[in-house]
Amino acid sequence: MNINDLVKEIKRKKSFLCLGLDSDISKIPSLLLNDPDPVFSFNKMMLDSLNELITAVKINTAFYEENGSKGWVTLEKTINYINLKYPEIFTIADAKRGDIGNTSNKYAKAFFETLSFDSITVSPYMGNDSVEPFLNYKNNHTILLALTSNNGSKDFQFFSNNSNILYKEVVNRSKKWKGAENLMYVVGATKSDYINEIRAIVPNSFLLVPGVGFQGGSLKKTFENGANKQIGLLVNSSRSIIYAGNESDFLEKSYSVAKSYQSEMEDLMNNLND
Amino acid sequence: MNINDLVKEIKRKKSFLCLGLDSDISKIPSLLLNDPDPVFSFNKMMLDSLNELITAVKINTAFYEENGSKGWVTLEKTINYINLKYPEIFTIADAKRGDIGNTSNKYAKAFFETLSFDSITVSPYMGNDSVEPFLNYKNNHTILLALTSNNGSKDFQFFSNNSNILYKEVVNRSKKWKGAENLMYVVGATKSDYINEIRAIVPNSFLLVPGVGFQGGSLKKTFENGANKQIGLLVNSSRSIIYAGNESDFLEKSYSVAKSYQSEMEDLMNNLND
Repeated sequence: MNINDLVKEIKRKKSFLCLGLDSDISKIPSLLLNDPDPVFSFNKMMLDSLNELITAVKINTAFYEENGSKGWVTLEKTINYINLKYPEIFTIADAKRGDIGNTSNKYAKAFFETLSFDSITVSPYMGNDSVEPFLNYKNNHTILLALTSNNGSKDFQFFSNNSNILYKEVVNRSKKWKGAENLMYVVGATKSDYINEIRAIVPNSFLLVPGVGFQGGSLKKTFENGANKQIGLLVNSSRSIIYAGNESDFLEKSYSVAKSYQSEMEDLMNNLND
Repeated sequence: MNINDLVKEIKRKKSFLCLGLDSDISKIPSLLLNDPDPVFSFNKMMLDSLNELITAVKINTAFYEENGSKGWVTLEKTINYINLKYPEIFTIADAKRGDIGNTSNKYAKAFFETLSFDSITVSPYMGNDSVEPFLNYKNNHTILLALTSNNGSKDFQFFSNNSNILYKEVVNRSKKWKGAENLMYVVGATKSDYINEIRAIVPNSFLLVPGVGFQGGSLKKTFENGANKQIGLLVNSSRSIIYAGNESDFLEKSYSVAKSYQSEMEDLMNNLND
């Protein structure tokens, strides 16, 4: 999916909400546990219920790898279902991969060709040649970790010298890489005070913002500090939506949380146009 | 596997060679392509031929993920085969994972429980709480990226201020983390001039050193700068061993390359004891 189509969808749905399918068999409603693939059933029901409220889906590979090759089958079924039934939804493999060029090439093939995701999250630690193989795909997007939502982000992302601080150095340098027009950046909502600094370096790039909801980040602050004319944000929520309920009314409860995010987003977008 | 058993095996086999199974269906001998799972056949033959020359096996997940869930089945069959037939071999999932705690927890389960690897490579970018879930496993080892073998390592790993340089900051900080006794570090053989600096910070930790062979790193320099009294090194070679040949004599050719590494290691170990 190209950026123009993503922006069109955000404006049509009045939503820049990304649904995080961190689907965990020990947390989904027990009434699904007799299904042949309970996690796939759960994902399908979430998608069928919430597709008009969201513009992106983020699938975190860890939750599938936990179950080995069986988990990967569930992952494949889920991404295939989205691509077939909701091709207008922007798909993100939250995989945080990155390796030497020869190996990153294989990861790019795995996620962009074998699985057909629109985008993947990538760690910057190994530098340019570890990211370039992903950037070679012109119709796909590479979402580089800049400033993450967790506490541990302080350990190295804020490592600084007189002229810069690591997370900004990552954004600064990467914007000069070949294929940088396909880059997006991860900036945690819990770090919303810093989003405007990153926005200043990459005024046109999309930012993927996790950490709203369970992790406590603010949607309003994120929007005020991070939105550009094309919105330029995908705000993710995983646990606060998908685990809103676990009785027979779990879909209604998830819908209600997702709808409240979408409504807040609609208001914020309307105010931007004022 | 605990460190004492690993050190014993290194001394018994007079080898600290790690075999990298970056097994790629487009590069393995064509005579295997009619097998039901050609990559598994190839891995099995490599292991049966080379097990007495090596003390560790490193499986790079990218080469398996490229084939989706089918590739994960091959990965599972390979690790199960090693654990059953060669339990004395130290196994490394070269997966370069790392995420917020809740997610790293799932990765730790995936690789230490579901797949039963002895160790996994992890990226430090997200800091302490992204690594800690791996360190909670007392019988497993977490191999943190410090200084990698690729050119792009210059981009961020050498980012420095008056008091430190990022890759050393990673080693310095991580050695104070809870469970740090289970940490090992990745240091590329192409950066052998820097190994002694890392060795000075972590005199007792094992270092995983990729980049000998195809990437051009020197085994002798790595040993001179990195060995400690317990050897403390696992030197990996992937492509130069597994793709030494691709005709009917491919096993002999791989054996001959692996044997030459092992012989050089034996000489270096003998000189250390002089």
